[in-house]
Amino acid sequence: MKLTSDDIHRLYKKLGPCGGMTPANTDRDVNLPGTRAIIAMLNKFLAILYPGCHATHPINCGNCRSYVEQMLKEVLDEMYDQVFRAYDHICRQERCAGCQECRTRAEEVVQTLMQELPQIRTMLQEDIQAAYEGDPAAHSTMEIVMSYPGLFAISVHRIAHLLHLHEVPLIPRVMSEHAHSKTGIDIHPGATIGAGFFIDHGTGVVIGETCNIGRHVKIYQGVTLGALSFDKDAKGRLIKGNKRHPDVEDDVVIYAGATILGGKTVIGKGAVIGGNVWLIHSVPAGSKVYNKQPSPEIRSENR
Amino acid sequence: MKLTSDDIHRLYKKLGPCGGMTPANTDRDVNLPGTRAIIAMLNKFLAILYPGCHATHPINCGNCRSYVEQMLKEVLDEMYDQVFRAYDHICRQERCAGCQECRTRAEEVVQTLMQELPQIRTMLQEDIQAAYEGDPAAHSTMEIVMSYPGLFAISVHRIAHLLHLHEVPLIPRVMSEHAHSKTGIDIHPGATIGAGFFIDHGTGVVIGETCNIGRHVKIYQGVTLGALSFDKDAKGRLIKGNKRHPDVEDDVVIYAGATILGGKTVIGKGAVIGGNVWLIHSVPAGSKVYNKQPSPEIRSENR
Amino acid sequence: MKLTSDDIHRLYKKLGPCGGMTPANTDRDVNLPGTRAIIAMLNKFLAILYPGCHATHPINCGNCRSYVEQMLKEVLDEMYDQVFRAYDHICRQERCAGCQECRTRAEEVVQTLMQELPQIRTMLQEDIQAAYEGDPAAHSTMEIVMSYPGLFAISVHRIAHLLHLHEVPLIPRVMSEHAHSKTGIDIHPGATIGAGFFIDHGTGVVIGETCNIGRHVKIYQGVTLGALSFDKDAKGRLIKGNKRHPDVEDDVVIYAGATILGGKTVIGKGAVIGGNVWLIHSVPAGSKVYNKQPSPEIRSENR
Repeated sequence: MKLTSDDIHRLYKKLGPCGGMTPANTDRDVNLPGTRAIIAMLNKFLAILYPGCHATHPINCGNCRSYVEQMLKEVLDEMYDQVFRAYDHICRQERCAGCQECRTRAEEVVQTLMQELPQIRTMLQEDIQAAYEGDPAAHSTMEIVMSYPGLFAISVHRIAHLLHLHEVPLIPRVMSEHAHSKTGIDIHPGATIGAGFFIDHGTGVVIGETCNIGRHVKIYQGVTLGALSFDKDAKGRLIKGNKRHPDVEDDVVIYAGATILGGKTVIGKGAVIGGNVWLIHSVPAGSKVYNKQPSPEIRSENR
Repeated sequence: MKLTSDDIHRLYKKLGPCGGMTPANTDRDVNLPGTRAIIAMLNKFLAILYPGCHATHPINCGNCRSYVEQMLKEVLDEMYDQVFRAYDHICRQERCAGCQECRTRAEEVVQTLMQELPQIRTMLQEDIQAAYEGDPAAHSTMEIVMSYPGLFAISVHRIAHLLHLHEVPLIPRVMSEHAHSKTGIDIHPGATIGAGFFIDHGTGVVIGETCNIGRHVKIYQGVTLGALSFDKDAKGRLIKGNKRHPDVEDDVVIYAGATILGGKTVIGKGAVIGGNVWLIHSVPAGSKVYNKQPSPEIRSENR
Repeated sequence: MKLTSDDIHRLYKKLGPCGGMTPANTDRDVNLPGTRAIIAMLNKFLAILYPGCHATHPINCGNCRSYVEQMLKEVLDEMYDQVFRAYDHICRQERCAGCQECRTRAEEVVQTLMQELPQIRTMLQEDIQAAYEGDPAAHSTMEIVMSYPGLFAISVHRIAHLLHLHEVPLIPRVMSEHAHSKTGIDIHPGATIGAGFFIDHGTGVVIGETCNIGRHVKIYQGVTLGALSFDKDAKGRLIKGNKRHPDVEDDVVIYAGATILGGKTVIGKGAVIGGNVWLIHSVPAGSKVYNKQPSPEIRSENR
């Protein structure tokens, strides 16, 4: 089969020539990093937090300092560049071109990252410990770092959440979706989550933007912390940004498949929510909430 | 540990020498593209539909035309080659070797692709808009293109479905499974899906081969549109290809975890299906279908 | 923005210098393969089991022997090296340094692999056949090899389980988590699974460490075979390793979303468990277990 460059060009024009293909990431209009650049940056953070664990080789002991410092340098430079592009993208659409504010804000983000990274590591240590203590199948903390999807998801979230707090466009959401893709765990970068958090198995977990989760909370696969309904404005458009997801206090356990909805729903400290429970109102501290045991119909048959 | 080439060869023979390892993709018997080649092709389609968004860099504005035309040329050439191989694979098994029909059919597929690609883009624009209007957490259409798993899944599906309509073996199924792997959303290439389709979160969604979905339908994570039972022929073998999955009319919303089964089941226009509903019969247009609110047992305890 | 090497070094020290970042995979302390090395090894096993299917090209027929033998040699050498490192890691923590036992045990693992690989292939042939017979949408066995997530997951599991039986640390768990990440199917390497096993769609399936699954079992998406409760020792710590997941006998079918829990639960031969059933006790052979048909409330409305 022979396609001429005329055939191709005609098709290109039908698709809508450059700029007509929106959203597109082209120099003049948008100039963002692509998703692959953001994921590469995320992998450097993981290399800093858990040196050698997600690579092909262990890190040579004598090189550990230079390795980690090199990763830090690269990732902070890239972060500055990419956060600047993300702010600038919005800035051009909404206000101006070439103002200095985007540069200043990008610098602030990098400085916050440098300040908070040690604290993030400390929280992740608590997360690892919670996984080790919470899962009878866990043999070592190294196993958790190298293979537990819940730890991967919360590691990414703690970085993405920090960017979200600075209202960085796009980058935190691409990061959290990368974790979702790898783990099946969908944590919106806006969610606030305390230390010692453990998600076991995790596939199908959804944690909404305005959730507030305390310390030492444990969640199983298929749990949704979601919105009950969406408020609309006078013109019938969804209102964005208001509180619409539950709060979960310290030491709560939520078993597989439970669905907890609504911005006014609070799960009190130490409560236990059973598998497949559907809950749209608050429960007090220390509650145990279970579905009545279903009694499926069992027919024995000779075969 | 020292393994000799004799050790290795003995093991090779025990495994069943070349051709004994079936299915294998070896020159004489099968000669298909591998999965990695198909995924590479899919990434080029995404680069055409959303230039620069899934890459490491934005596309330079002056280069956009040459970039997109280059991608078009590559992907259409590869598609011709691979579709031919896929047809030829079946052809050799069932009929002949070296007939020209496979080449003709492969050309027809590429021509259909060239004809339909602009239309696919238009439908995807509607899908993007539906996501923006349907999710209070969406900040921009660019965010949707760069991070929403539902858009990724439907983008892949609209390409795969076109190949499915031409009865191209293997390639559409490998494409849809790639999207399933990345997103947790399993859409069979056979499903017919109208424009303005939005799947939110998406993990665990299953949409069967013979589904027929209208325009502006919205689906949440964990929804199954599946088969109720499988018909068997006189010899007890499953009958392949008959209608066994539901139809969903325009403007329907299906909340998380609902399971809708059966080839005669029709969800009428504008119906709303609540979370975790289990439905095996049709419901009329405008229906609202909810489970009775479960009342889980709540015990408050002093701790 | 200008970061000096002093800025970076100060941050490095705050993070906790080399060795302080635990778990880390650095030469002196741990010296494990990283996750990427383990996944590379897994891809070689898949190349041996299904030559050419997961690559970019078919294997040239005349080269098939040399291709497969080359893959065998590489993967067995790498396996020896990596299994040794994994044993050695535990050995250094618990007992000694430089003992020869780790080398001997690593050799035994490679020898078992060489012995069992033909048997694993035979079981996988039965798995492929079960998928073909169990799914009306399957057009060919090649389609199953190239695109079915259930086959991917069980292929990885049959390798990982063999390493688990030899108590190889970390590697089997990283392998199973790789399959989980790609497919949404979480099979613990400890689970024992007979031939002719078919998982359809699969997203959200969880199969626990001490499950025992017979021959020709069929499972759909979202099924959990899990633990009912975790026993604790006198100090309140979880007891690891005891039997806490169900047994499933030959020819059982478990439909989507069913949850079956507990180490004493046995699903008898040929039983059928309906969608979303929640089961924490045994059912006899030939049983059919269904939830009472829920009757969701349907309101038709004029719009």
